[in-house]
Amino acid sequence: MNRSHLDFLLSDWLDTEALTTRDRYAEHSAGTFAAVLDLAERLAQDKFAPCNRLVDVEEPTFDGERVHLPQATHDATRAYAESGLLAAGQDAEVGGMQLPYVVEMASNACFFEANVAVAGYALLSVGNANLLTAAGSASQRRAFTQGIWDGRFMGTMCLSEPQAGSGLADIVTRAEPDGADFDADPLGPRYRLRGNKMWISAGEHELSETIVHLVLAKIPGPDGRLPEGVKGISLFIVPKHLVDEQGALTGERNDVALAGLNHKMGYRGTVNTLLNFGEGRTPVRGAAGAIGYRVGAPGDGLRHMFLMMNEARINVGLGATMLGMAGYAASLDYARTRRQGRALEAAPADAGPVPIVSHPDVRRMLVAQKAYAEGAFALCLYAARLVDDRRTGTTEEAEAAGWLLELLTPIVKSWPSEWCLEGNNLAIQVHGGYGYTRDFPVEQLWRDNRLNMIHEGTHGIQALDLLRRKVRADGGRAVALWAERVDRTCAAVDDDPALGACAGSLREAVARLRSAADAAWEASGATEALANATPYMQAFGHTVIAWVLLDVARAATERLSAGGGDDPMLRGQLLNAHFFFRYELPRIDAWLAPVQRRDRTFIDLDERWL
Amino acid sequence: MNRSHLDFLLSDWLDTEALTTRDRYAEHSAGTFAAVLDLAERLAQDKFAPCNRLVDVEEPTFDGERVHLPQATHDATRAYAESGLLAAGQDAEVGGMQLPYVVEMASNACFFEANVAVAGYALLSVGNANLLTAAGSASQRRAFTQGIWDGRFMGTMCLSEPQAGSGLADIVTRAEPDGADFDADPLGPRYRLRGNKMWISAGEHELSETIVHLVLAKIPGPDGRLPEGVKGISLFIVPKHLVDEQGALTGERNDVALAGLNHKMGYRGTVNTLLNFGEGRTPVRGAAGAIGYRVGAPGDGLRHMFLMMNEARINVGLGATMLGMAGYAASLDYARTRRQGRALEAAPADAGPVPIVSHPDVRRMLVAQKAYAEGAFALCLYAARLVDDRRTGTTEEAEAAGWLLELLTPIVKSWPSEWCLEGNNLAIQVHGGYGYTRDFPVEQLWRDNRLNMIHEGTHGIQALDLLRRKVRADGGRAVALWAERVDRTCAAVDDDPALGACAGSLREAVARLRSAADAAWEASGATEALANATPYMQAFGHTVIAWVLLDVARAATERLSAGGGDDPMLRGQLLNAHFFFRYELPRIDAWLAPVQRRDRTFIDLDERWL
Repeated sequence: MNRSHLDFLLSDWLDTEALTTRDRYAEHSAGTFAAVLDLAERLAQDKFAPCNRLVDVEEPTFDGERVHLPQATHDATRAYAESGLLAAGQDAEVGGMQLPYVVEMASNACFFEANVAVAGYALLSVGNANLLTAAGSASQRRAFTQGIWDGRFMGTMCLSEPQAGSGLADIVTRAEPDGADFDADPLGPRYRLRGNKMWISAGEHELSETIVHLVLAKIPGPDGRLPEGVKGISLFIVPKHLVDEQGALTGERNDVALAGLNHKMGYRGTVNTLLNFGEGRTPVRGAAGAIGYRVGAPGDGLRHMFLMMNEARINVGLGATMLGMAGYAASLDYARTRRQGRALEAAPADAGPVPIVSHPDVRRMLVAQKAYAEGAFALCLYAARLVDDRRTGTTEEAEAAGWLLELLTPIVKSWPSEWCLEGNNLAIQVHGGYGYTRDFPVEQLWRDNRLNMIHEGTHGIQALDLLRRKVRADGGRAVALWAERVDRTCAAVDDDPALGACAGSLREAVARLRSAADAAWEASGATEALANATPYMQAFGHTVIAWVLLDVARAATERLSAGGGDDPMLRGQLLNAHFFFRYELPRIDAWLAPVQRRDRTFIDLDERWL
Repeated sequence: MNRSHLDFLLSDWLDTEALTTRDRYAEHSAGTFAAVLDLAERLAQDKFAPCNRLVDVEEPTFDGERVHLPQATHDATRAYAESGLLAAGQDAEVGGMQLPYVVEMASNACFFEANVAVAGYALLSVGNANLLTAAGSASQRRAFTQGIWDGRFMGTMCLSEPQAGSGLADIVTRAEPDGADFDADPLGPRYRLRGNKMWISAGEHELSETIVHLVLAKIPGPDGRLPEGVKGISLFIVPKHLVDEQGALTGERNDVALAGLNHKMGYRGTVNTLLNFGEGRTPVRGAAGAIGYRVGAPGDGLRHMFLMMNEARINVGLGATMLGMAGYAASLDYARTRRQGRALEAAPADAGPVPIVSHPDVRRMLVAQKAYAEGAFALCLYAARLVDDRRTGTTEEAEAAGWLLELLTPIVKSWPSEWCLEGNNLAIQVHGGYGYTRDFPVEQLWRDNRLNMIHEGTHGIQALDLLRRKVRADGGRAVALWAERVDRTCAAVDDDPALGACAGSLREAVARLRSAADAAWEASGATEALANATPYMQAFGHTVIAWVLLDVARAATERLSAGGGDDPMLRGQLLNAHFFFRYELPRIDAWLAPVQRRDRTFIDLDERWL
C-alpha cells in the first residue's frame, strides 16, 4: 500500500477529518486517525506479512481430535487482539476506539494486503460481534460479544449447508425448543440444533477460548415440518464451549463437532470446515443436540444476517482489492529490477537488456493493475465513508448514504473480486515463468483472490441483487441519487483540458446503463429481464469505477494546481483515469447490448445442445 | 471430449479422409484413423486420467541425487511408449505409423485432456525428435532420435537461462570445440558446453535410459567473446548419458547436473528444472564441460529451434484447449446433477430446487466455456490440417498453408491460453465453493492452464510476432489469403436464415482488423505501432474464432439439412456461433480502438507515476 495514496484518498478526496465534527468522533483528529493507521501498518508488516506464504504451504490439518494451525497464526491473531484493533469501531464503553468505519476499513486494508487469510479470523469475529451488537439482547452482548471485543473469543457465520449454498431457502438445520423452560434462559430462548453447516471459515481451531457460531436454522412447526422459504429462517448463537451470563466458560463442551476440513486452492490460512451440530458426539447437559440461543424473533434470521452481510461484502471487496494491490506492488518491483530485451527502436548498439518496466506491453499490464487496484480501493473507502454517513450523518445524509450503499454494495463486492483477480493474473504475467512458481508471491495472490467471486454471495447472486432489486427500488431512486453525484463530478471537470473528454463518456455510460435496465424490464418477466444480469453488473461496475477514478483525478488535479507540484502519486491518479476511460470503459458496449435487446440465448437453448 | 464432435470436425469439416489420396497416407483409411483415436482415448482414460490429481498433489522431489516422480508417471509414460503413438506421424522406416498431423493432434488432445502434465513427457520428446529429424544429420538421427521413437529416450528443449527468458539474444551458455579432433566425431562436431538453463521441463528424471537435451548456446569467437544477438546462437545435442552411433549407452555420464526444481503453481506432474551444464560435477572423458554435438551450422540454432517451436505452439494451444474442454465437461456434469434455487417465474409452489443447469446465468457460463473450448479445438485442428497441407499438399496448397500457418500460429498459441483459462475460471464458478476445493478437478485445471500464456513464447511475444511480422510479411499476403477463406465462409452462409447475420459482422471485423493494422504502421516507428500489440492480438483472435465457429456452424447446417435430423451435437455447433457473435465478437471494438488511434498511453507515461 502506498500510504501517501491512502492519505490523499482519506483527506483530500473523502474529507475524513470532517467526521471529527460529529459527536461520536469528537475525541478524534487527523492525528489519531494517522496513529491508528501507523499501528495497523506496523502490525501487519511485523506479524502478518512474514507468515503469508507459510500459512499457504502449511495448510490446516485435523488429527481426528484437534485442528492444527501454524504457530504464526496464533501469534498474529494474538497480537491483533492485543492491539485493540478488534474493537476499533466500537463504543468506548465496550473498550472500543470509536473510530469511523472508513478508518477501520483503511486499517483492515493493511492486514488484507499482508495476509488476507490470517486477517480473516479477526475480521470474521468483528462481523459476528457487529451482528450481535445490532440484533442481540443486552445479555447476549455481555456474554458473547464482549469476549470478542476483548480478544478472548472468535466468531463464525454458519449459513450454507452441503445441499444449500446460494439457495438458503433450502436449509434443513432444525432448532427445537430445549425443554419447557426454554424461554426462561437469561442468554435468550434456548434451543437444540441439529444439522450440518458447510464452508464455515474459522469453524474449528484453538485460537480462542470459545467459538461463537452464529447459525441459521429453522424452527419446526407443530406438525414437525420445517417452514418453507427464507422467511422460516431464524438465527441462533451456538457457542463451541458454553459460557455464563458474564461470558465466563462454564466448562461445558457444546454438541458441535468438526466433520471435516475443506481443502482449498487458496486462502489456506483460514481454516474452512464442515460442522455437525447436534449429532450427539459430545452430548451436553445430558442430551444430544447443540445448545443455541435464539437472536431476535423467529423468522428474522436472514434479515439479521444481512445486517452484517452488507458490511461483510465491503470487506470481501476490500480483501480482493488489497490482493490486487499486493500483486501490483510485487510486479512493479519485479519490472523495475528485472532486465530483459531491448527497446524496439533507437537502442544503442552496445546497450544491454533494459528493465522490463520500459516495455510498453509490461507497462500496459502494470497500469491496468494499478487502475484496477486503486479504483477498487477508492470505491471501497467511498462505500465505507457512506457507512459513516448512514450511521452518523444528518438525516438527509444518512438517507442518501443508505440508498447509495444499497446500490453500490453489489459492485463493491463483485468488481474487485473480478478485476483485481485479473490484476493478479497480469502480475503473474509480468513475472513470466518466475510468477508461476512459489519463489514469488503472485501465484498465491491469484489463488487466494479466486475465492472472492464465490463467498458471501456469488457473482451471479450479486448481479441478480443489482438488476432485480437495487436499480429498481423505489422507482430507481438509488440510481438517480448516484447519477446526481456523477453529474457533479462531470460538471467539475467539464472544462479541464485533460479530464473534460471523460465527462462526456461517463454521462453517456450512465445513460446507457439506465436505458439498458429499462429495456430489460420492459417485458413482463423476470426471467427475461435477468437473463443477462451478470453482463449488466459488469457494465455497471466498470462505469462506477470510471466515475470513482475520474472523481479521484479531479481531486488530484485540484491538489496539483493548489501547489501539489509534480507529485508522482497525484500524477498517477490522472494516469488511472486516462487509462480507464481509454481502454476499459469502452468495454461496456459489448456487455450492455444483450441486456438492451433482452437476448434470450440462455433461456431458449435446449439443454441437450450442451 | 465428445467423440462425435471430434469425428464431425475431422470428417465433415476438415475432410480428413481426403488425405488418404496422398501417397504418404495411402495405407490409411477412415477406419485406421478411427482405430488410432480409439486407442488414444482408451489409453488416456486408463493410464493418464486416473493419476491427474495424484501428480498434482505429489509434486516431484529431489533428494540431492535423484528426482522422484510418482510410479503412475512411470507407468503412464511407459504405456504410451509401448502403444506406438510416439512415432504416430513418423515414416514407417523408423517404426512410425505415417499418420497425418491432424490425426496425431487429435490423439494428443485425448492425453492433454486426461493429464496435461504427464502427457508433456512424451510430447516434448516428440518435438525434440521432430527437430532432429528435420535438422540433424543421419548419424544424429540414428543415435538419438530413433531412441525417442522407440520409447527408450526422452528429450528436452533448453532455451531459457535464468537471466534470459523471452530475450534469447542474451544467453551466455558457451560451447567450445572439444579438442583438436572436435570436427571428426561421427555424431557431429563435438563441443564442451558450460552454462545454466532455466525452466527445463522433463530436465531430470529416470523415466528413460537417457535424456536428449537440445541446447541453445553460443560459440565464442577467436577473442573468447560470445557473438552478439540471436544470430550467434547455435544448437547442440547434449545427452545426459552418452550414446554411441547406434544409440547404445556407452556407460558415460555427461557433465549435466540438476541445480534445482522449480516449484510451480500447476502443471506439477511435469518436472521443471534448472540445469547446470559443464560445471564439473561429473567430469566426462577426463574433463569438466558437458559434451554436446552441434546440429547444423554455427549460428543456425534459433532457426532450427523454430522448426519445432511452431509445432510446439500448436501443442500449447491444444493443451490449453483440452484443459478448457475438461473444465467444461466437469462443470456441465456438475450443473446437471447439482440442485439449487428455483426458476424466477412460474415455479410450482411445492417444487424443490432445480438442477442449476436451468438457471440462465449458469447456462451463460456453460455456453461460454463450450464456445471457447470448441472454437479453440476447431482452430487447433484446422492448424494441424494446414501442417498436413504444407507437408503433403500440392505446391499451391502447401504455399497457402504455409502462409496461413505463419499468421495463425500466434493465435493458436495465445487464444486458447487466454480464453480456455477464462473457461476454467467459469468452470470453478459453476461449482461454487466446491470448485475452489481439491474435491473437484476444476481448480487444478485452472492452475495447470495458467502456464500456457507464459511458456513457448509469452502472450506479449506472440502479439509482437503477429503485428510486427505476420500481418505484414510480403505486403500482408497471409492476411489476404485468410480474408479469402473468410469470404468463402461468409458467401456460403449469406442466405442462411440463422447464420446470415453473422457474415456481415465477420466481414466488418476483418476489415477493421486490417484497417487497425494499417493505422498502427502508418506512423514511422515500431514502438508506437506495437504499443497496443496485445489488444490487437486479442481482437484478431476473437475474429479468427468467430470465423472458425461460423464455418463449423455452416458445416453443421449442411449436415443437418442433409439428414442429420436433430442431432444435439450439431445444434450445439450453431449455438456456439450464435453465442459468440452475440456476446464475444463485439468485444473487439474496445481492443481495436487504441490500435487504430495509436494510443501512446504506455509510451508516454513517466515511470515515477507507477
